[in-house]
Amino acid sequence: MSHISSKVNVAIVGLGRLGKRHAENLAFRTRHVNLKAACSVVEDELAYARTELGIPATYTDYRSLLEKEKDLDVVFLVSSSNLHSEQIMLALEHDLHVFCEKPLSLTVEEGLAVHEVHKKHPTKIVALGFMKRCDPSHDYVKKIIDSGELGQPFLVRSQTVDKYTMARFQLQFAKTGGSIFMDYNVHDIDIARWFLGSNVKEVYALGGAYDIKEFAEFGEADNTSALCRFVNGTMANVSASRIAPHGAAMFTEVLGTKKWLSIGFVPALNKVQVADEHGARYECVEDFYGRFEEAFLLQTQDVINCIREGRKPRASILDGLYASQVAIALKESFDDKKLVQLPELELS
Amino acid sequence: MSHISSKVNVAIVGLGRLGKRHAENLAFRTRHVNLKAACSVVEDELAYARTELGIPATYTDYRSLLEKEKDLDVVFLVSSSNLHSEQIMLALEHDLHVFCEKPLSLTVEEGLAVHEVHKKHPTKIVALGFMKRCDPSHDYVKKIIDSGELGQPFLVRSQTVDKYTMARFQLQFAKTGGSIFMDYNVHDIDIARWFLGSNVKEVYALGGAYDIKEFAEFGEADNTSALCRFVNGTMANVSASRIAPHGAAMFTEVLGTKKWLSIGFVPALNKVQVADEHGARYECVEDFYGRFEEAFLLQTQDVINCIREGRKPRASILDGLYASQVAIALKESFDDKKLVQLPELELS
Amino acid sequence: MSHISSKVNVAIVGLGRLGKRHAENLAFRTRHVNLKAACSVVEDELAYARTELGIPATYTDYRSLLEKEKDLDVVFLVSSSNLHSEQIMLALEHDLHVFCEKPLSLTVEEGLAVHEVHKKHPTKIVALGFMKRCDPSHDYVKKIIDSGELGQPFLVRSQTVDKYTMARFQLQFAKTGGSIFMDYNVHDIDIARWFLGSNVKEVYALGGAYDIKEFAEFGEADNTSALCRFVNGTMANVSASRIAPHGAAMFTEVLGTKKWLSIGFVPALNKVQVADEHGARYECVEDFYGRFEEAFLLQTQDVINCIREGRKPRASILDGLYASQVAIALKESFDDKKLVQLPELELS
Amino acid sequence: MSHISSKVNVAIVGLGRLGKRHAENLAFRTRHVNLKAACSVVEDELAYARTELGIPATYTDYRSLLEKEKDLDVVFLVSSSNLHSEQIMLALEHDLHVFCEKPLSLTVEEGLAVHEVHKKHPTKIVALGFMKRCDPSHDYVKKIIDSGELGQPFLVRSQTVDKYTMARFQLQFAKTGGSIFMDYNVHDIDIARWFLGSNVKEVYALGGAYDIKEFAEFGEADNTSALCRFVNGTMANVSASRIAPHGAAMFTEVLGTKKWLSIGFVPALNKVQVADEHGARYECVEDFYGRFEEAFLLQTQDVINCIREGRKPRASILDGLYASQVAIALKESFDDKKLVQLPELELS
Repeated sequence: MSHISSKVNVAIVGLGRLGKRHAENLAFRTRHVNLKAACSVVEDELAYARTELGIPATYTDYRSLLEKEKDLDVVFLVSSSNLHSEQIMLALEHDLHVFCEKPLSLTVEEGLAVHEVHKKHPTKIVALGFMKRCDPSHDYVKKIIDSGELGQPFLVRSQTVDKYTMARFQLQFAKTGGSIFMDYNVHDIDIARWFLGSNVKEVYALGGAYDIKEFAEFGEADNTSALCRFVNGTMANVSASRIAPHGAAMFTEVLGTKKWLSIGFVPALNKVQVADEHGARYECVEDFYGRFEEAFLLQTQDVINCIREGRKPRASILDGLYASQVAIALKESFDDKKLVQLPELELS
Repeated sequence: MSHISSKVNVAIVGLGRLGKRHAENLAFRTRHVNLKAACSVVEDELAYARTELGIPATYTDYRSLLEKEKDLDVVFLVSSSNLHSEQIMLALEHDLHVFCEKPLSLTVEEGLAVHEVHKKHPTKIVALGFMKRCDPSHDYVKKIIDSGELGQPFLVRSQTVDKYTMARFQLQFAKTGGSIFMDYNVHDIDIARWFLGSNVKEVYALGGAYDIKEFAEFGEADNTSALCRFVNGTMANVSASRIAPHGAAMFTEVLGTKKWLSIGFVPALNKVQVADEHGARYECVEDFYGRFEEAFLLQTQDVINCIREGRKPRASILDGLYASQVAIALKESFDDKKLVQLPELELS
Repeated sequence: MSHISSKVNVAIVGLGRLGKRHAENLAFRTRHVNLKAACSVVEDELAYARTELGIPATYTDYRSLLEKEKDLDVVFLVSSSNLHSEQIMLALEHDLHVFCEKPLSLTVEEGLAVHEVHKKHPTKIVALGFMKRCDPSHDYVKKIIDSGELGQPFLVRSQTVDKYTMARFQLQFAKTGGSIFMDYNVHDIDIARWFLGSNVKEVYALGGAYDIKEFAEFGEADNTSALCRFVNGTMANVSASRIAPHGAAMFTEVLGTKKWLSIGFVPALNKVQVADEHGARYECVEDFYGRFEEAFLLQTQDVINCIREGRKPRASILDGLYASQVAIALKESFDDKKLVQLPELELS
Repeated sequence: MSHISSKVNVAIVGLGRLGKRHAENLAFRTRHVNLKAACSVVEDELAYARTELGIPATYTDYRSLLEKEKDLDVVFLVSSSNLHSEQIMLALEHDLHVFCEKPLSLTVEEGLAVHEVHKKHPTKIVALGFMKRCDPSHDYVKKIIDSGELGQPFLVRSQTVDKYTMARFQLQFAKTGGSIFMDYNVHDIDIARWFLGSNVKEVYALGGAYDIKEFAEFGEADNTSALCRFVNGTMANVSASRIAPHGAAMFTEVLGTKKWLSIGFVPALNKVQVADEHGARYECVEDFYGRFEEAFLLQTQDVINCIREGRKPRASILDGLYASQVAIALKESFDDKKLVQLPELELS
């Protein structure tokens, strides 16, 4: 890309439920983008990419894509969590920018390895998919914090929540090792770090399979609540639920010495208040995409803009690494019923 | 009553649904009161007055009460609307203070007659039951208006609303001549006058029997909306409904050049938000007393305090007279499908 | 346009404040669009069109555009209100589809003339810019009405409101004849017609220059409230304000015999609740575009989809014609302080 | 008290800020009460009791009161926290019912001693002042839980919060040993136990003097957040703040497998929404009494009714004992930065 006005050449990797959302945003709703290639192991998804999105080149193999697409600028990785680390490193080695959905890695070691590779390609952007950082409301809160108007932020409460209708679907992932701390709370941890400006030092996590008992069979919970002590003395309470009765009730609160801000107490579907025999009520968003559609779109545009302008992304490899570290510690605390201390990461 | 610390001797007239509320407030929740006598044509109500409230003297005839109870200070009239004017005048002629439920009168002439009698007993308080004026929220709004912080108030929107479950019960009153404008909107008119500081000059009223068709048989409506032009150029939109699906959704709004204030947009039953399959919701108050219980209590205490301190009441005979005048004009506009001008009252 | 998958060729006319928004939506955020030409009398705006939006052809003269651009499918008219009718007719005569911002016309006669021309080009779409019909919340309400779940809708309350910071700017338009009823309430009238399923029969309008006295010099108001009787016996209360202290507090409410729905009671800027010395509060949207950005975008996509699929638009010439008729009647009622009857339009 | 219709003879002990509230509720707003005696070491308070409340007998010494007032039924203890245990035991030994403000005791041992004495007077009621249990909203939630409609409750979040304007005043108490866990969270613990139906097994508490650094000098915090594991596997997150910028933002939430309920997210002063340059906002309650005035009144009536009807009170000695035990454990966790296990109380 030789010039600020040029378009950014993009390949998308993974066209599942969320991958399709990213692909449509790239194809129709983002400026300065050429969506040139797509990769999936599912042939139907590639057919969709060609006919619906007009993507010229499709691949079933990620390495082939990297080798054959010579003028790519960036890959958007929306693949399985266990592939993230390796795919990022491969892209960096092909001198590409990267956007990768969270989590960065399932272990701290993998994350550190990505960090090492990135150090060899320091001009390349690696942006992590913590889309809450691009949500207009979260962004607004961050600006108030940075302005000093909030005073000292000292407590973040944040919860990531699915409607109960998703629980059976999520049970599949629990069987294959996904942890509610890594899949859900990783967002809350990232936001708490972002708002509190510090890293986590110690965690204590509770939880249980209160409604869907099958989660207990895999050592998993359907609800959790955890407390995190931060290095700078501040604190966070992060919770997760797979069984909210009303909808995707994401909620974040930050308390400061001058202002207290909260985001999304009522997870309203829209601006309509319904008054009927059930009272005065707001119907609620069905899922995380319903809540964060705009955030995903803004995130995609922000990544493209970062590439064009040589800016750093909102969420970096280190942000992903710290979030994974905490998620792993929370799982350990939950499993062993003990306080878990987090060692400082040795980032050479 | 010779002394500020003395108690006020009270008789209550009418012990129906609302009368009982007043009586219990007087008996158990108001300071400086001796509840000495009760009057009702229903023997069960008098038995209740004696045994539950401990009222020593009970009467079936209002005139007997006035004659026999020699040390009364005030009568609380919670009788049928058509008796109000006459009972007030009788009380004044017995040199008593009066609290009377709204409306003051069903015709302007009757109201003027009460005014004439009152002029002969100028030290006597006649307080009208516009309890919204004593509701802490309405009172708070009035204080903001009076402070000047609202700027110039120019539009009031107010609605008086019953839950649909009350509609069949209300049909009885419609049969015997009660008008939705006199029974419901009289409150909204009073609040609009109080907030706008002016009288009504011209009205236009719409409405219909949209749900309970029987109301049409009596020339009545189950829902109305009306527009009022005030002498000082300001305006009010008053509405009424007998069929709210969720509860007693009283609502008042006042727009000023500096602030806009609204009262009770969500007619919540309590402070509990319920999140379940119907969304995020507040259950709603069932009836006007559920909404205005505190206002009724504060009104009663205020009347007692006015008597003890020689202060004027919040709502006077003239307030009742103007409200009745407007309610009658609204009915005429509704009946005849025309604008109705209100003559200035000749208050000699 | 020979094929469903083809793109729609678009020209935009008018690149002022709102015109730019439409142009950017067409250029970057709408599917199946080729934005081929732009027309403006301001050279800076055309330069913007070329460099920022990449529009190949620019014109200072509307007729030249129509003559030279041979493969156009549709013109988007975002020009001055007084030009709308003529520009629509010219486009139709060039066999083009049309999207036109509201209002359709400043007189009923002009609107009828457009209707006559349209009858000669019946396959052409003429879509009016009543974007509230595309707002997800208004659309949701309409679906509930159409499903029958609301019961019989009988009262609509709707207000169009600007923040006070816009009032001085609006004063310019008032000087040159823009009426608050035509500029603001035309939206409320359209929504009331849409929700109530009937036309307006009689109107009564109040208002005044309560804050910005200069409006009175032009016979204009800074606030209005009006009552409309509909042919089917239902009613609407429409209001407008140029001086809301908090923001663009658009609000719509529809009461039915089974449900009451309201849209946007709190005109919140985002999902952030701020708790500080001012209380628990939502900051508010600054202007109508902040409130209806998504509606404008969805409207544009809907127009494109209608053209591709041969569907009728959400708001037609007749919708525009009826809205203008009512706006004119409201102004007459306001001016002459009388009830105004609306004749049935003779649509041959 | 020989008969159900008799009045209950009451003495009040302590006439400080809260004591006066209780005394006025007993004197003017509670049924079936004779307020016969008051005790205070402050002569002004006793003068107030005599002249304003009309209490016939006043004492400066608690033991004198117990000995001289022969026909008392119940004492209301609103004295210093450190006196509660001893005063309760003395009252029981004089064969009196007791209402006592929280906390029951500052140590577990004292609380157990009270329990032992109570076992010798089993027909006497000892009611603890956990007034939230009498708040209509908390009571409503409890009823929904008990009905089974909430499903299994598994997480309670509750916070006790003062407005920042109270912090300097609270600093006095911190100097003399009051802990934020004992003074504030004791309410949250009680509510969590009440809603979750279980006792606390393990706690972890964080906090700090984030705003008012002087609290740190006394080993105290101005804000805390703690996590509690319950015996039945459920969990609670309790928080406290001395520095809320907007008001007394008490908030409680209970999550169940079928419903999630929350109480008081917006700590609104009244029903008035103010729209002005700060947005759309609710002004907030100033202090705990502003929030819980009705709860205090209902609690007082409930205690009187319990005595008359021989019912158990809402909050018993054991409830007070468990709450104190947890508050002490939270302080230990906060002080020592460790998990603290709670032994099962040996209640012989």
